[in-house]
Amino acid sequence: MEVIEMLHMNGGIGDTSYANNSLLQQKVISMTKPIREQAITDLYCSSLPKKICIADLGCSSGPNTLFVVSELINSVSTICKKLGHDQSPEFQVYLNDLPGNDFNTIFRSLPRFHANLRNEMGSALSPCFFTGTPGSFYDRLFATESLHFVHSSYSLHFLSKVPDGIESNKRNIYMASTSPPSVVKAYYDQFQTDFSMFLKCRSEELVTGGRMVLTLLGRRSDDPTSKEGCYIWELLATALSDIVSEGLIEEDKLNSFNIPKYTPCPAEVKTEVQKEGSFAIDRLEVSEVNWNAYDDQVYPSDEFKDGGYNVAKCMRAVAEPILVSHFGKTIIDEVFRRYREIIADRMSKERTEFINVTVSMTRKG
Amino acid sequence: MEVIEMLHMNGGIGDTSYANNSLLQQKVISMTKPIREQAITDLYCSSLPKKICIADLGCSSGPNTLFVVSELINSVSTICKKLGHDQSPEFQVYLNDLPGNDFNTIFRSLPRFHANLRNEMGSALSPCFFTGTPGSFYDRLFATESLHFVHSSYSLHFLSKVPDGIESNKRNIYMASTSPPSVVKAYYDQFQTDFSMFLKCRSEELVTGGRMVLTLLGRRSDDPTSKEGCYIWELLATALSDIVSEGLIEEDKLNSFNIPKYTPCPAEVKTEVQKEGSFAIDRLEVSEVNWNAYDDQVYPSDEFKDGGYNVAKCMRAVAEPILVSHFGKTIIDEVFRRYREIIADRMSKERTEFINVTVSMTRKG
Repeated sequence: MEVIEMLHMNGGIGDTSYANNSLLQQKVISMTKPIREQAITDLYCSSLPKKICIADLGCSSGPNTLFVVSELINSVSTICKKLGHDQSPEFQVYLNDLPGNDFNTIFRSLPRFHANLRNEMGSALSPCFFTGTPGSFYDRLFATESLHFVHSSYSLHFLSKVPDGIESNKRNIYMASTSPPSVVKAYYDQFQTDFSMFLKCRSEELVTGGRMVLTLLGRRSDDPTSKEGCYIWELLATALSDIVSEGLIEEDKLNSFNIPKYTPCPAEVKTEVQKEGSFAIDRLEVSEVNWNAYDDQVYPSDEFKDGGYNVAKCMRAVAEPILVSHFGKTIIDEVFRRYREIIADRMSKERTEFINVTVSMTRKG
Repeated sequence: MEVIEMLHMNGGIGDTSYANNSLLQQKVISMTKPIREQAITDLYCSSLPKKICIADLGCSSGPNTLFVVSELINSVSTICKKLGHDQSPEFQVYLNDLPGNDFNTIFRSLPRFHANLRNEMGSALSPCFFTGTPGSFYDRLFATESLHFVHSSYSLHFLSKVPDGIESNKRNIYMASTSPPSVVKAYYDQFQTDFSMFLKCRSEELVTGGRMVLTLLGRRSDDPTSKEGCYIWELLATALSDIVSEGLIEEDKLNSFNIPKYTPCPAEVKTEVQKEGSFAIDRLEVSEVNWNAYDDQVYPSDEFKDGGYNVAKCMRAVAEPILVSHFGKTIIDEVFRRYREIIADRMSKERTEFINVTVSMTRKG
């Protein structure tokens, strides 16, 4: 768990110190909003609960941490207004991430967040109670049948650990077209183990009729080594290989380095949900977002025009802690300088996108 | 709220950097254990719940933070074993303190705490789920009827603010025998406002039959300015006055300084509970603990033999942040040097004790 804990400690893809990165996540959250909106509306209308307990898993600690929660509260309040209900239900919000996450910063931002919510929604706002729940979502986190709605964005593609038995994945750091089949299988096995454990835990925590909306980095293709999910990491492996060639890193050190993540295709997600059996899939959708989240933006400053810079910065937020823990600090700047150049080169020559898989489910009776 | 927030941020009387202080709190927790044990046993036996939701209010962040919770979980497991129940109920634990509390440290200690609990209790341990809830306990913190057991130790004697209209409390920093009657009334009014608000909020959060056990610093005497509650602060006022006499603090600065706390007698606690009306009092007890918590201990080192040192250290944990915010940092060491001398002198001449008021209540139907 050490590796994944470090990733999460730095907020995974949601690290606050990387504006570009936050923007990427914000884009994905915004794109998937209709799916969550439908799920929470259906939940409310089908049971008219007095209390809605919402868990956001892998909430990180940054500008996006409370974004989805406020959107969900807003959605319910809007329906209540439409339906002429005087009062929307109470909200009990559980914000989850690993124990290394900076909950202090979230908690200290809550009074202002709450005040803003009150300003925005006025008397329509029902009481909202916020709690932080530290722990791995690959384990039970909440009491039995205590949740109505579970959300997770851009966290669940992280595996609980680097798969066992992938020593043969030399010069690669994730699945790649040159990975031996046993490596690809080991990654998929770990995804199956982790994702089915996740589903089992959540099935125990959600009430019958409860909803769950998950967005993961994934791929469209059935081929797990397709460029969609792996290319960005292959380019990082290239940067690392260059450094090995120059003798700054020992080859063995690179050969033993692998990233604990998996980018599933929709069919793989569907298969696990069906095998576990507690959930009915309501929607299963794929979306894409440009590697450079600033691509269609008014650039906040000149440096953001450099796609290579933006994407390398974004990936650095995710990969730096895990690289540092394996290779040490000294090579990091050099790794990302090269990575930036390689990315910029690729972006100038081809279409480069992250693929998101979003699944919306209902807990069966 | 600024003042009280600072107090709580430093963990109030539970600040971790003051061993003596922790020992004092530990002593009080240990003395009041039978009262909590009876309350949680009655709760379990009267309703045999599948889930027990426990809130610890003003949990601070230190060696005592999880002490009461583990004791409560242990108590229930023991009864379950006695009654031959296969499985004790699930526990959902809410740890509360102000948003400035160091929840990160608590959360990072949870995996080890959990592992210890598992080692100690083996298969008898039911699932325990821990969450942190930031916010003032003078406001709603939890959803309606979501709690079964509320505990608070050594936090509720802090008022939500310094009472209004006590400008005439010159040279005193808390109620004292020389305080004008209007000051004493203002303190009592603030206690009534705060404590009744506390009771109202908790009455909405607790289920019918739910229990609440509170321990506050208080007094036996009906006289609010009696030595029991006020003397320790009068001696601090003496230390500050000495410093004023020497021109190190301006007199106006001292005159405008007051501590936001109230040390009620049992009758005052009872009156508020009866006025609010939602709770039946099961037990209302007074206990005392020596100013010097090390008094009956094997001294860990020579310096602990100095009662003045121990008590001044203990009080420094509580008072330093509030003194610094009013007087600045420069005089602090001098204040506590003098305070230590004054305390040592008094302890050599008279019996010096803190008085604790503990009340155990049941939420009426």
